[in-house]
Amino acid sequence: MGEQLTEAGGKTRLYVTGDLGAGMAVALDEGPSHYLLHVMRAKSGNRVLLFNGRDGEWLAEIGQVSKRGVTATCLSQTRPQAGAPDIWLAFAPIKKTPADYLVQKATELGVSRLLPVFTRRTIVARVNLERMAANAAEAAEQSERLTVPEIREAMDLGKLLASWPKERWLYFCDEGGGAKPLAEVARGASGPAAIITGPEGGFDPSERDLLRAQSFVVPVTLGPRILRADTAALAALSVWQSVAGDWR
Amino acid sequence: MGEQLTEAGGKTRLYVTGDLGAGMAVALDEGPSHYLLHVMRAKSGNRVLLFNGRDGEWLAEIGQVSKRGVTATCLSQTRPQAGAPDIWLAFAPIKKTPADYLVQKATELGVSRLLPVFTRRTIVARVNLERMAANAAEAAEQSERLTVPEIREAMDLGKLLASWPKERWLYFCDEGGGAKPLAEVARGASGPAAIITGPEGGFDPSERDLLRAQSFVVPVTLGPRILRADTAALAALSVWQSVAGDWR
Repeated sequence: MGEQLTEAGGKTRLYVTGDLGAGMAVALDEGPSHYLLHVMRAKSGNRVLLFNGRDGEWLAEIGQVSKRGVTATCLSQTRPQAGAPDIWLAFAPIKKTPADYLVQKATELGVSRLLPVFTRRTIVARVNLERMAANAAEAAEQSERLTVPEIREAMDLGKLLASWPKERWLYFCDEGGGAKPLAEVARGASGPAAIITGPEGGFDPSERDLLRAQSFVVPVTLGPRILRADTAALAALSVWQSVAGDWR
Repeated sequence: MGEQLTEAGGKTRLYVTGDLGAGMAVALDEGPSHYLLHVMRAKSGNRVLLFNGRDGEWLAEIGQVSKRGVTATCLSQTRPQAGAPDIWLAFAPIKKTPADYLVQKATELGVSRLLPVFTRRTIVARVNLERMAANAAEAAEQSERLTVPEIREAMDLGKLLASWPKERWLYFCDEGGGAKPLAEVARGASGPAAIITGPEGGFDPSERDLLRAQSFVVPVTLGPRILRADTAALAALSVWQSVAGDWR
């Protein structure tokens, strides 16, 4: 009774969608319930940390444990909700395993929204949004985030640019040359930002022209070597966080 | 005859260990020979790009193709050998798939030497250096590097620090707090550098003390979230390249 559940990375933290507050009971979602029952073999009275992206982090005690699910009661707030960097990542979908990896790592690196975007050379035809959401939630739990990145429906590049909020800089990782280093153009920049990376074969010339024609697009380079699509996305997020995000 | 072999990422580039120079014939190593014969189905007269980390990149024509191996003759130099950033990565070994990924990505990001280091909380007991070398060579071929990172035998943390070259800064990714941002301390720093990242459970307190007691160690932070071991290594390399390496 009262034992705090722990796992390899530290205390067990779970993302929930319901509201959290002193004395409130919350019915855990199916994923966390299954995890607690079948992986952690949780018992009534065990304690876990909960967060929902709105109400901070709470120490909660597990009440009912049954096949129909798990409920927990909030005891005390362990961390208040805090602001997080406003950085989106638009990326051309890639194959399953690299895609899992990309979503997990981008979440650890503090991305706030993930936007899959179809380009001419994108080979992957379908995006599994549920799988992306599960990967993002798990990475948020383990990285001690208080939020889970928002995941948007995939859309074509043209549509993405046409509906883009003009006040948000879009750093375009351009292998075509003639771009400035991301660290240089983003250093100390304030306000909302986003990064866009292409598929394995890169953007095609007409897409590069379209991107460069937008008032909010800033072409940037990530050095002289050719990076894989997922490496470029993670490198760009790291550099942005270090010069304009919350790694400063 | 004379056809340049290509694959998904562009022209076929192969790392070889032998010398390269105008008119010189080179016997390809077993790995590249196997790849050309059985994956690319190369024929006599096909052309490939070769590099060895010393003599630049060469366009070469395949001569003899047999089960005993492949030879090629250098036609012309396509790129001169160029300097590369001097940045080492010391890292606690991790499980197979994340380790493959780490070596590939670190190579793309321009690491010059990989040093596996055993720490108290390292779970992985054995390091497969051959597998690491194969991953590094393949990533170098695809990222258009002219070098392949050097891979050192694994050693204990204490031994690594005792034999460390004192003029090389060692940026210690410290989750324990009280460290400055890597981008801040490394910005514009010149001279040789290295990054060290811990195992999944982090360095233990005595290891942190040992690291912090070294004159060449600079504790650094990568922001407020908990990064997995491989994410931390790749993020640190990206940030270093952007403020002190060749992404500027």
